[in-house]
Amino acid sequence: MRLARIAHPGGVAFAAIEGDGDDAQVLEIAEHPFGDPNFTGKRWPLADVRLLAPILPSKVIAVGRNYAKHAAEFGNEVPQSPMLFLKPSTSVIGPNAAIKLPPAAGRVDFEGELAVVIGQPVKNVPAARAASVVLGYTVANDVSARDLQKADGQWGRAKGYDTFCPLGPWIETKLPDPGNLSLKSEVDGQLKQDGTTADLIHKIPELVEFVSSVMTLLPGDVILTGTPEGVGPITDGQQVSITVEGIGTLTNPVVQG
Amino acid sequence: MRLARIAHPGGVAFAAIEGDGDDAQVLEIAEHPFGDPNFTGKRWPLADVRLLAPILPSKVIAVGRNYAKHAAEFGNEVPQSPMLFLKPSTSVIGPNAAIKLPPAAGRVDFEGELAVVIGQPVKNVPAARAASVVLGYTVANDVSARDLQKADGQWGRAKGYDTFCPLGPWIETKLPDPGNLSLKSEVDGQLKQDGTTADLIHKIPELVEFVSSVMTLLPGDVILTGTPEGVGPITDGQQVSITVEGIGTLTNPVVQG
Repeated sequence: MRLARIAHPGGVAFAAIEGDGDDAQVLEIAEHPFGDPNFTGKRWPLADVRLLAPILPSKVIAVGRNYAKHAAEFGNEVPQSPMLFLKPSTSVIGPNAAIKLPPAAGRVDFEGELAVVIGQPVKNVPAARAASVVLGYTVANDVSARDLQKADGQWGRAKGYDTFCPLGPWIETKLPDPGNLSLKSEVDGQLKQDGTTADLIHKIPELVEFVSSVMTLLPGDVILTGTPEGVGPITDGQQVSITVEGIGTLTNPVVQG
Repeated sequence: MRLARIAHPGGVAFAAIEGDGDDAQVLEIAEHPFGDPNFTGKRWPLADVRLLAPILPSKVIAVGRNYAKHAAEFGNEVPQSPMLFLKPSTSVIGPNAAIKLPPAAGRVDFEGELAVVIGQPVKNVPAARAASVVLGYTVANDVSARDLQKADGQWGRAKGYDTFCPLGPWIETKLPDPGNLSLKSEVDGQLKQDGTTADLIHKIPELVEFVSSVMTLLPGDVILTGTPEGVGPITDGQQVSITVEGIGTLTNPVVQG
């Protein structure tokens, strides 16, 4: 099932998406998308609604340097344990919302990532049970002010700006193998990242075990699994699209803030 | 006014505290503590209720190396801009709740801090207006798994464990000068930190301006302003108390998790 959050003529709601292309329909969910969602019976063509970030997470946990070739492109070693940092929930935006370049931030990069959305409150989940606590998977852009990231050491500022965590276009709850998906990023139609989640150093079940051994995860919390090589700058007027196989494409315009 | 969150015989509520010592009373607030709180008319002696974390923040933004002598005690330079990192909201606990030492985390340190609690949704607040967007001030312990902090580089794990952000005992809304308060930390009654917020490198108004230039702050969000020198390890069975002048004392036992 594809789970989305939508703005429709009557307000904002979670929804499920059925069908593809011009026939795609969105079915309004009465409350939240966890468990077995209740549907209101209202539906619209997908083209008639606006997609929002598919979830408003209480926290976004990101994993640094989780693809060897991306670590290498900035001359970094691969960390032994997953290197965790947090992005504020206020950095989340949905598909087609603008990434705003902060004044005087210097270079800002896109980073295409597979994102894991947690489905229930959990602590200390063994890797073998990790899949059972996942609501589904979406696409993320871990937007990073690269100059500030280097200058600060800690990444709270460089990766924490409003609009720096695009998520979407929806959450796919059925993915046969999230650990073997093609991940491509394009800027203005030019291919920049062409990776696969098969290259994740710390795999998804291990990440869920590791993160949940540190902190309680709540329904809707998001784990960004890391970015493959090929990251690069985005500038005013460009458009960045990240596609993860089996999920979809997350596209955001870039504007000077 | 002192604002608290309490567990009383009928449930959980925000409350205001009136009076001191044995005469202190807690007055139940009907809803939230922002703006002019509405009171239910229910009241209890302070001794008859349990204090919880005075706020459940949507995010906790912390500032690294914001006292020169603390930066020096680990051989670090003072950063030019405030060095921001985030602690997950799931790390927050209240006064007298146990700090749980993670199995195999190695050395875990207390870090006594003055915490700023934001009162309204804000972005880009100039320093001159910072005080007007602050709900009040509380005491924080930025508990840190020191060995993991060094090993990981990013501090999401080392400072993100459940129970690693004690806050309390309450929020003081009237502090004549939060930039000139004594801050003391004791472990089992032994004085370990004896600082003053007058030594903050980046002062509170500047921090509010800086953080809000990066990310939207929401009511209840917390900024930890940094710790003075004298941090050190805490171990199973100890008790750590942090006192900030004009606010109160935040005490937490330490247990092996």
